[in-house]
Amino acid sequence: MAIDASVVGKELPAQTYEYTDRDVMLYAIGVGATTQELPFVYEKSLQVLPTFAVIAAFPVMMGIGQVVEINPVMVLHGEQRFEIRSPIPTKGKLTTGGKIGAIYDKGSGAVIVIDSETKDDAGTLLFVNRSSIFVRGAGGFGGERGPSATSQNVPPAKQPDHTVEYKTSDDQAAIYRLSGDRNPLHIDPDFAKLGGFDKPILHGLCTFGHVGRAVLHSVCASDPARFKDFEVRFSGVVYPGETIVTEIWRESGNRVLVQAKTKERGETVIANAAATIA
Amino acid sequence: MAIDASVVGKELPAQTYEYTDRDVMLYAIGVGATTQELPFVYEKSLQVLPTFAVIAAFPVMMGIGQVVEINPVMVLHGEQRFEIRSPIPTKGKLTTGGKIGAIYDKGSGAVIVIDSETKDDAGTLLFVNRSSIFVRGAGGFGGERGPSATSQNVPPAKQPDHTVEYKTSDDQAAIYRLSGDRNPLHIDPDFAKLGGFDKPILHGLCTFGHVGRAVLHSVCASDPARFKDFEVRFSGVVYPGETIVTEIWRESGNRVLVQAKTKERGETVIANAAATIA
Repeated sequence: MAIDASVVGKELPAQTYEYTDRDVMLYAIGVGATTQELPFVYEKSLQVLPTFAVIAAFPVMMGIGQVVEINPVMVLHGEQRFEIRSPIPTKGKLTTGGKIGAIYDKGSGAVIVIDSETKDDAGTLLFVNRSSIFVRGAGGFGGERGPSATSQNVPPAKQPDHTVEYKTSDDQAAIYRLSGDRNPLHIDPDFAKLGGFDKPILHGLCTFGHVGRAVLHSVCASDPARFKDFEVRFSGVVYPGETIVTEIWRESGNRVLVQAKTKERGETVIANAAATIA
Repeated sequence: MAIDASVVGKELPAQTYEYTDRDVMLYAIGVGATTQELPFVYEKSLQVLPTFAVIAAFPVMMGIGQVVEINPVMVLHGEQRFEIRSPIPTKGKLTTGGKIGAIYDKGSGAVIVIDSETKDDAGTLLFVNRSSIFVRGAGGFGGERGPSATSQNVPPAKQPDHTVEYKTSDDQAAIYRLSGDRNPLHIDPDFAKLGGFDKPILHGLCTFGHVGRAVLHSVCASDPARFKDFEVRFSGVVYPGETIVTEIWRESGNRVLVQAKTKERGETVIANAAATIA
């Protein structure tokens, strides 16, 4: 089934996300934050993990099926990028509007790029997100190939400046999914088998959150205000219980390059990633 | 400060608790349920842990300060009992009404007994709870001593029929507190020191939930419908990260006696406990 590329530019249904400090703390625990990072898991002097920005945008991405016909079983989360424009409050009512930013023809599949903006109740722009969805088997419709993600943000051939290991819990996905993404692929063994996996896999955005924490604590002095943007390509899967090893290289200026792999299998799970640090 | 015993029989402010399957799953994870107990942490065929019954009643217990003057720093959770009358739904809006059932003078302190009933939106009685609060330093007012908790439900001098070990996570209290009890004693190292502890302690009701799971899986065939009631005395504290060892003895008929201790320190944390199994 080829993609109808004429939908580029089309708006996706806006989504409202209302949350409290409980959601902020639950998200933090869902991406592995511990009581060793107390300001992120305790309401006293609570701080919001920068990667929380994807939570409000996620339902917009899920609305894509209302605009373009795709087979949900064939969908993979390919890339994610966010940019923080204004501090994320510890509670609020946010509205996210999005549109289809681009559609590319990769031959074996199609890439759908979704751009979204999230504003608070007063209309202040808090953050923007860009998500790329890879739809297997939906290519070959004669569209543009688009940029090559694998040629961007390639780390230098030297030891990283920071290496951070976070062991995930066997129940990491069970906790993370309570932040909104209830895809059974991440908890249901039967469903995972149907999807071609031996067992449930961690959400890509849960891995993303772990890697974001590693960046935050390594090069932002644990201060969310210094974490400006983050972009990644999802290149492999983590199984709950595995250890995520994040490697960080300081580039010139305020830019860091990032890569993550599983310690147990050596699989690269986050690649071509970079963040801007204030 | 002695307790004003004339408040026995007085009603406590009724509390409404509205919840969804997300709260049910978060509670289960908070008391240590894992993906090995999928029906309790996954919305497909979701089941509610019987000990979830304490969650709706907890705010009523917290309202006691509005009826009788007590120093919150001196309060300990002494005993807890619940009895299920009708299956707990996986979502709903519950209303709990309570009253002060008794006040006893233990010399070194006072015991305040709180009885509550929780009904669903249709008025069906789902469960009752009895909580005993020990207020240190508030005894000596010449009241009745009341029943001796330590003489009840004493296990026989033989090996238990079932022994279940659950290792808690270092962040168990951080997760559990998102189910409603945000007492900083369970997460804030400074606050814990003020309370006389080296570090934050696990919630008594979190330990209670772990022990309840052990009973459920050992003698109820993991079927919440078979778990009728449960009563415990809190006799010690668990530190997050410790292992809770639950011992269960089958008594005559449908009654089991229960005790729990920490594996690491051998401290008895739940004593004089019993459950009725259908």
